[in-house]
Amino acid sequence: MTTINRTIPRPGGRSARVQAAVHRATLELLAQHGRAALTVPLIAARAGVTPSTIYRRWGELADLLADVAVERLRPDADPADTGSVAGDLLAWAEQYRDEMSSEVGLGMMLDVLSARRGALAEGQLPVPCQCAAFTAAQIETIVDRGIRRGEPVPDVDAVMDTVVAPVVYRALFGTAPMAPERAQALVEACMKTARKAPTTAVA
Amino acid sequence: MTTINRTIPRPGGRSARVQAAVHRATLELLAQHGRAALTVPLIAARAGVTPSTIYRRWGELADLLADVAVERLRPDADPADTGSVAGDLLAWAEQYRDEMSSEVGLGMMLDVLSARRGALAEGQLPVPCQCAAFTAAQIETIVDRGIRRGEPVPDVDAVMDTVVAPVVYRALFGTAPMAPERAQALVEACMKTARKAPTTAVA
Repeated sequence: MTTINRTIPRPGGRSARVQAAVHRATLELLAQHGRAALTVPLIAARAGVTPSTIYRRWGELADLLADVAVERLRPDADPADTGSVAGDLLAWAEQYRDEMSSEVGLGMMLDVLSARRGALAEGQLPVPCQCAAFTAAQIETIVDRGIRRGEPVPDVDAVMDTVVAPVVYRALFGTAPMAPERAQALVEACMKTARKAPTTAVA
Repeated sequence: MTTINRTIPRPGGRSARVQAAVHRATLELLAQHGRAALTVPLIAARAGVTPSTIYRRWGELADLLADVAVERLRPDADPADTGSVAGDLLAWAEQYRDEMSSEVGLGMMLDVLSARRGALAEGQLPVPCQCAAFTAAQIETIVDRGIRRGEPVPDVDAVMDTVVAPVVYRALFGTAPMAPERAQALVEACMKTARKAPTTAVA
């Protein structure tokens, strides 16, 4: 069990079935009634478990919502392969901008951030950091492909600071989401920092 | 009363005294007992008002905490004037990075963001956007000084995207706050986009 995958129990076991049922019930109730109407007893009834099962496993409602949000933010596929780092980053950034600028994306980020405050178990990665790790892993896939093709590539950290951070900042703190053209310009500026990586960088 | 200053009532009036007493009580209790121990009745008792006064004026505890956080995030002075835009931005960014990377700064941002979710009164600027507006106003002061001195200056939006956003993103989602050297490098990269503004830009 890694720190990132802590909430994924052995597939097929009772624990995994409970988790899947509770997550599904939460998502259905979110879609039907909205976040403000959610309660632990309501979710428990829908999932066919007792409220104490939820309290024992997740803690408060906010922690369950953060866990559900992290799972939704976990990418289920590699970024599209367009044949170049610039093309991959442009395509990825547009999808990311679109998702994070939506009401659903904003709600997930706020759910995840509300778990930042709670006390952390030893060695456990804070929930928001898990999300940043998912995002960094997607960027890393794009950068690694570029290195294999012998292309100049930007640092993963540079992409996080100059593309990911402004998209997220404007979604959270801005009066309007970032325009697609602005996200595109940020990727282009970031690509100007691209350097040829030594070929030994790829195992 | 503007949308930004909506919570600042006429100075000296009863409403202003109530607000000041409730804010002060909240800050004192935060410092003494921490956020998890705060309740509306506790704050009301300390401030010498009834709980219903607080509920009527602020809504829930989270809304009061967001209001208190916004007031703390409101800058109480212009950015230091070092004689150049680059110098001003470096000094400002270091102070901002330092504040936002602290436990107190992170807690204020989370309090402010928790108010993003609630329904908004018509024409009311969401609380997190008020904070972004404070920050943008500080940057604008620096840029305006530069224009008056005839210096090349970056866009305020560029500073928000390339300096402010990564500092905030790493504080909220990172495993460690941004290093001072990194913030400095971001300011230097941003200054490379500086352009001479037409003198008519300043009224």
